[in-house]
Amino acid sequence: MSSHHIVRDDQEPALIIANGAECSTELMGQLLEWSPLVIVLDSAMPRVMELGIKVDVLLGDFDRGFDPEYYRQKQFPLEIVHTPDQDKTDLEKAFDYLIGRGFPAVNVIWATGRRADHTISNITNIVRFRDKLKIVILDDHSKVFLLPQKFEKWYPAGTPLSIIPVGKVSGVTTNNLKYEMTDYELNIGYRTSSSNEPLKDGIVTIEHKEGDLLMMECFD
Amino acid sequence: MSSHHIVRDDQEPALIIANGAECSTELMGQLLEWSPLVIVLDSAMPRVMELGIKVDVLLGDFDRGFDPEYYRQKQFPLEIVHTPDQDKTDLEKAFDYLIGRGFPAVNVIWATGRRADHTISNITNIVRFRDKLKIVILDDHSKVFLLPQKFEKWYPAGTPLSIIPVGKVSGVTTNNLKYEMTDYELNIGYRTSSSNEPLKDGIVTIEHKEGDLLMMECFD
Repeated sequence: MSSHHIVRDDQEPALIIANGAECSTELMGQLLEWSPLVIVLDSAMPRVMELGIKVDVLLGDFDRGFDPEYYRQKQFPLEIVHTPDQDKTDLEKAFDYLIGRGFPAVNVIWATGRRADHTISNITNIVRFRDKLKIVILDDHSKVFLLPQKFEKWYPAGTPLSIIPVGKVSGVTTNNLKYEMTDYELNIGYRTSSSNEPLKDGIVTIEHKEGDLLMMECFD
Repeated sequence: MSSHHIVRDDQEPALIIANGAECSTELMGQLLEWSPLVIVLDSAMPRVMELGIKVDVLLGDFDRGFDPEYYRQKQFPLEIVHTPDQDKTDLEKAFDYLIGRGFPAVNVIWATGRRADHTISNITNIVRFRDKLKIVILDDHSKVFLLPQKFEKWYPAGTPLSIIPVGKVSGVTTNNLKYEMTDYELNIGYRTSSSNEPLKDGIVTIEHKEGDLLMMECFD
């Protein structure tokens, strides 16, 4: 099995492997290298085992006849976390678990692709964890995270940036984008800022007053 | 090239092939069989050509050096529709085109997977076309469409059904679901009805008063 246990600093982001489409081994390898803790949702566990990855925590409702004990010896030491609550998805329960352990941040892979309902829920439900956990969802074409009320980051000109509201978002004002916004109201389904980009190399600023705004750094 | 020109009735749904991940050849074959018109978005055209599919309309902004004339002889007769408007996605422009031609309905494939911003936009932007075009987005794991204010359909017990609001939706009342709702307010990111299912074989009823509600019939 590969080892990802080089760094054991809980200030580094944990890694959750969810139940969607697999990402490239390159992306997974980069994230494993720096993750102090690897959590796998139960439905992904058979596929993760095939990749020879050391798992720290196996989490889920263990329904449909799933037997977590089967993995205990194969992944020793392995923490098994049974989360039967039907009001939350397994991914949300993994976020709760990390908050309980005091982690400040997490990267999530395999959270997109396959079922559209899971993709939409996994991406939009991260708004519930604002101020509790810094969540980044990654796949081979996308990096998604919740924007703070004032966001500043350096980007090269032309980087594809999509700014997508989860519900309504008011007072959106930007600086250094091709399609600039001044005190805009965005509204999912009706008015978003998909496929925007920095006008020139430099700091992009995105501010908003109320609501939940996602940044999606995506590429073909 | 395969022929999909068995039925030429404009009451049948058109088919749009968008720019996301490819679906199974089985799903594509089923949809081609009954489609009176096949529209391909420009960025998907090279991949579609490899599959030997007869295309009726090639649509897009033709940016990044895309040459539509290259395909005119190879796909004769081919209608080429240049849509440079930067305020709409190519998929929205394809919907506008079909409305202009009087089509009542369309199936869309390759609209999900790959870039998360495209997936989210393609799925949620269908709310703009309510009462103008009946849109169904399909992939190998999902069938997504906008619910009318009163929806009734027969399902087998246990069919996975996710009811996802695009923004806020009020007055959601259901009958014959495992997690029943009575005059609920749903709110994307905060309160949805993902992974619900019919309680028993029979008619499922879903009503709502205001807002845009998506049905996602998804399976692993």
